[in-house]
Amino acid sequence: MNILLTNDDGIHANGLWAMERVLSQQHDVSVVAPNEERSAVGHSITLHNPLRVSKVETNGGWGYATNGTPADCVKLAVLEILKMQPDMVISGINPGHNAGINLNYSGTVSAAKEAALMGIPAIAVSEDHAPAEEHTFAAHFVSTLVSKLQERGLPSGTFLNVNIPACLPDKIEGVCITRQASTRLGETFHRRVDPRNQPYYWQGVETQTDPHEPDTDTAALCKNCISITPVQCDMTDYSAMEQLRSWNIKLNKPGPNL
Amino acid sequence: MNILLTNDDGIHANGLWAMERVLSQQHDVSVVAPNEERSAVGHSITLHNPLRVSKVETNGGWGYATNGTPADCVKLAVLEILKMQPDMVISGINPGHNAGINLNYSGTVSAAKEAALMGIPAIAVSEDHAPAEEHTFAAHFVSTLVSKLQERGLPSGTFLNVNIPACLPDKIEGVCITRQASTRLGETFHRRVDPRNQPYYWQGVETQTDPHEPDTDTAALCKNCISITPVQCDMTDYSAMEQLRSWNIKLNKPGPNL
Repeated sequence: MNILLTNDDGIHANGLWAMERVLSQQHDVSVVAPNEERSAVGHSITLHNPLRVSKVETNGGWGYATNGTPADCVKLAVLEILKMQPDMVISGINPGHNAGINLNYSGTVSAAKEAALMGIPAIAVSEDHAPAEEHTFAAHFVSTLVSKLQERGLPSGTFLNVNIPACLPDKIEGVCITRQASTRLGETFHRRVDPRNQPYYWQGVETQTDPHEPDTDTAALCKNCISITPVQCDMTDYSAMEQLRSWNIKLNKPGPNL
Repeated sequence: MNILLTNDDGIHANGLWAMERVLSQQHDVSVVAPNEERSAVGHSITLHNPLRVSKVETNGGWGYATNGTPADCVKLAVLEILKMQPDMVISGINPGHNAGINLNYSGTVSAAKEAALMGIPAIAVSEDHAPAEEHTFAAHFVSTLVSKLQERGLPSGTFLNVNIPACLPDKIEGVCITRQASTRLGETFHRRVDPRNQPYYWQGVETQTDPHEPDTDTAALCKNCISITPVQCDMTDYSAMEQLRSWNIKLNKPGPNL
C-alpha cells in the first residue's frame, strides 16, 4: 500500500521513525509531518498564514516538514505534496496516551480524523512514555493492525485510535476494543506571578487514566491492555434530534420592535 | 441564569456583544473571550505558553480577554476567573457558518464542546456574513432557544450548533433540526511563489453549503432555514466496536527477534 505517515511531535520524533522503519518493510511510506512539536493543537488548521514545505533528512530517513498543524499536513500531503490519495494514513507514534476526553485536544488523533474525513482509512497511535522503550513493539503491533484494517475495512468516516500501555511489552495483558472514556479528570490551572508582578496561568498536567468507567480506553490502559477505539467523524447526536423536534421551536419573524 | 459568553473572533467582535446585549436583559452574563481572532483553531488548548487574563472595556460592555484559544477561555473561566460553573455557555455569534465538516475546525463550536465536556449546557451560534445585519435577529432567536434549553434540557455531553442563514430575517423559511453534513467540498491550496522564489501555500476558501445531503445543516441553510444540530462529545463509533471484536486481533508477545 501507499501509506502516509504523520504525527504531532514533529518530523524528528523517534516514534514517527520507529513506525516508518517497520511499515516500510512492506509498504511505500511517505512522511509529511510538522517541522516541530505541535501537540494539543486539536483539529486546528492554518488559514491566516502561508504554509511552507521543505524536504528534511533525519533519523535515517527523509520526509516533508511543514509549518502547519497535523491536520494541515494531511491536507497538504493529499492535495499538494503527494498529489494522490494514500491507501492509509498512520499518525504517531505519540509519546503519551491520547485517551478519554483528550481525543478532542490531540493533534495525533486529529490527523487521523482529517484522513477519515477524506475517506482514507486511518490509525492514530500513542504509547505511554517509556524511556527504555523505543516503540519497536508498538510499531510491530500497528503493522499487524494495518494489515487487518486493509483486509477487513471500516465504515467510511471511522478510524482507529490505538493506545499502548506504559508497561514493558511482556507485561501487556491483552487487546481491548474500547469506547472513549468521558470522565473529566482533575483539571487545574497553576496561577503564578511574573517578575513584573503580573499573574499568569499554566494548564496543569493530569493523568489520562481512569479505571472507573467500564469498557473505556482509560480503563483498558489501567489494566495494562492495548486499547483500540473506533472513532467516528460524524458528531451528530441522532437520538437528540427527535427530542429537539418535540421542542417545537418557533421562528418569530422580526416585527417593528426587533 | 449565570451565562458565560465566549467566541473565537475575539472580545471586540460585534456578534459577541449583540448576543450580550440581548441575553443580559434576562440573565447574568459574563464574557471571557480571546484577545484577538482565533478562528479555525479547532479544539486546541495552550500547554506550552502561559495564559494571561485582562479586563477589557469594549463595545459598551466589559469582559475578560485571554491570550488563549476558545477552549482555553471556557476552561479558564470555569476554573479560575468565575470560580464557578455557569448554568449555560453560549459561543458566538460567529460571522460565517460553521456547518458540515467545518465543525471540526471551528473555534466557536469547540468552545461549546468544551462546555459540554464539563457537563454545562451550551450553544454555538454562527450567522452568515450579512453586512447590513447586526446580528439582532439571531441574538433574539438564540435568546428564545436559551429558554427552551433551560426548560427542556439535553443529555449531558450534547450541545447545540445553530446556524442562521445569510438572507434577511423576513426571508427565513423556518427552523430545521439537522444532522452534520459529511460531504467534503472542493478543498484546494493556492500555490504561490514569494519574492525570494520560494513556494508557499494558502488554504483556499470553499463554500460551506451543499444542498445534496438531505436533513443536513448545509441543506437547511441552502433552503434559507435556521439549522439546529445536536452535537455529541462522545466520538466512539459503537456499531464498529462489535465489528472490530470479530477481527480477533492477537497480541504477539515480543520474541527474541522483535
